[in-house]
Amino acid sequence: MIVNGESYRTIWFEENTLKLIYQPILPHQFEIRSIKTHQEAAQAIEEMWVRGAPAIGAAGAFGMTLAILEANASNFQEYAQTAAARLRATRPTAKNLFVGIERVLQSIQASSSWSEACKNAISEAQAMADSEVKASEAIGKTGSALIKDGDSILTHCNAGWLACVDWGTAIAPIYWAAQEGKKNFVFVDETRPRGQGSRLTAWELGQEGIKHTIIADNAAGYYLSKKQIQLALVGADRIAANGDVANKIGTYEKAVVAKACNVPFYVAAPLSTIDFQCASGKDIPIEERSPDEVLYTWGVNDADQFVRVRTAPATSTAKNPAFDVTPAEYITGIITERGIFAPDSLSQLQS
Amino acid sequence: MIVNGESYRTIWFEENTLKLIYQPILPHQFEIRSIKTHQEAAQAIEEMWVRGAPAIGAAGAFGMTLAILEANASNFQEYAQTAAARLRATRPTAKNLFVGIERVLQSIQASSSWSEACKNAISEAQAMADSEVKASEAIGKTGSALIKDGDSILTHCNAGWLACVDWGTAIAPIYWAAQEGKKNFVFVDETRPRGQGSRLTAWELGQEGIKHTIIADNAAGYYLSKKQIQLALVGADRIAANGDVANKIGTYEKAVVAKACNVPFYVAAPLSTIDFQCASGKDIPIEERSPDEVLYTWGVNDADQFVRVRTAPATSTAKNPAFDVTPAEYITGIITERGIFAPDSLSQLQS
Repeated sequence: MIVNGESYRTIWFEENTLKLIYQPILPHQFEIRSIKTHQEAAQAIEEMWVRGAPAIGAAGAFGMTLAILEANASNFQEYAQTAAARLRATRPTAKNLFVGIERVLQSIQASSSWSEACKNAISEAQAMADSEVKASEAIGKTGSALIKDGDSILTHCNAGWLACVDWGTAIAPIYWAAQEGKKNFVFVDETRPRGQGSRLTAWELGQEGIKHTIIADNAAGYYLSKKQIQLALVGADRIAANGDVANKIGTYEKAVVAKACNVPFYVAAPLSTIDFQCASGKDIPIEERSPDEVLYTWGVNDADQFVRVRTAPATSTAKNPAFDVTPAEYITGIITERGIFAPDSLSQLQS
Repeated sequence: MIVNGESYRTIWFEENTLKLIYQPILPHQFEIRSIKTHQEAAQAIEEMWVRGAPAIGAAGAFGMTLAILEANASNFQEYAQTAAARLRATRPTAKNLFVGIERVLQSIQASSSWSEACKNAISEAQAMADSEVKASEAIGKTGSALIKDGDSILTHCNAGWLACVDWGTAIAPIYWAAQEGKKNFVFVDETRPRGQGSRLTAWELGQEGIKHTIIADNAAGYYLSKKQIQLALVGADRIAANGDVANKIGTYEKAVVAKACNVPFYVAAPLSTIDFQCASGKDIPIEERSPDEVLYTWGVNDADQFVRVRTAPATSTAKNPAFDVTPAEYITGIITERGIFAPDSLSQLQS
């Protein structure tokens, strides 16, 4: 991924420190934050310094790595269990978080000494991050085959490289298509309440030189119905065994409308997002976030200072589910690192 | 309608002055503005000091009344034509605007002297405003029959009394139901980009003591799919002869999703919103508004000062269609002052 002409990952581990692009202040400021403890890592996940299923999978893995480095020879197994519980409690919906924590926890449990556990945790978390990058790259290559030169593509929320370790999921095929010389245009849903489309997707598309425009979430149906969009690509926070997909709130609406307009609707996600323990979307827990995200909007004023404005009456309340579930019937296909699958055929991927 | 315990109309004529509730600063401040010329009235419509199809119908009529009062005995017919052209050019989508201007223009053309024209214009505009109030009240009474005690209702944008002269269209049945003692709950779509749901509908429901919560536009599908909403009620800016409905951007998405969830989706509008000259929704012009409405959000900061914040990257653009067209097939019925009609049966209303 490119920021101001330089190469970055969204999250990485360096000299026993977790580093990440601090996303709450994007697109207005670009800042790298250093995280030294697993408690700070948990806070970073909760406060969405890093977000997006694959990226918080890596954050969970690196958070566990920090935990083992904090421990000592006499308490490291217990300490790892306690840290895993803390990290698991940060956000309930994304599958990858639990995979990342579990992989490192198992590598610790398989270790006979603290020093071995430290070494194993570091290499397991790094392997997890690297495999997410490989998966994203493969998703990009596979998904690019769906994109014709000149297509306009709808995307919701941010499933680009800021949501992953690199490349992205839904946006990876768009980056790959650009490298192949295709000229495409992206309709970016603003994605209220947190505005990940407007703040993050538009920013990273701009950094990569991909043509795009931001639309209010309400306008996606307008462009779908006018046949100005040829393809919809979104990410996923968790995919159930039956192909139902939990993703950012509003994904369900876009999928239903895309189907009504005969526009193909694809979900892009690594296998680590598929939860074969979850029979259907009904079993996926949906995070309810603060009403303030709906009642207020953050941004910069004319002097480029960060300001929070309240749009709603002081006496009104809000409800704020962060995700919804799109039933498999609305999904044309799921793009993974192992190819594109019909949502009702995921069981063949179960290892 | 009640504001701070007192009775108001949204727009009225008093001592040769057009008065209106100044809506751009709601819900944060309540202010009445006085308008003395038709040019100011045109500006007020363009800048959405007053908005909503029935209310801008009245604004167009009262704007024409101001024009005739500005004219003199030798130029009043020509002056009225020029003023009508100026007022028609303010906003393209709402049918009522053109009806309001036309009614007063015809009353002027039928006058043999300037003083008679002044008298006729004042009484015609007042009659138009009064008939909008009667229509809204009748819509309320008729529509209330669709609302069961305990129902939760979804609404989009503001089609309450702030969009009308009084009562509202989509919200009128909710007010009527409350007067009949029914206890209901309203899910208010925020309605980006301008936030008419969050700013206006939530505010007027609060003033009237109706229980409600604000949701991001993206969350409507979530609550529809969970059967937590029993009925959807929206207004209309223009209804074509075949029952297609132009209304605030996002209405189309809500209607498609409501149908997928088997939730009845009703449009409430006075007959003045139906355009029998318009064969289908394809013929309705859709206003494209400033990209800044998408790139920025207005509100009050913690010191209650008005501030505009930019959420998007400085380098990104936006597209901002203000309305979309919902095909008749997605609409359960159209609630008018003469009863509830299937969208494909509107021709019987043509007088």
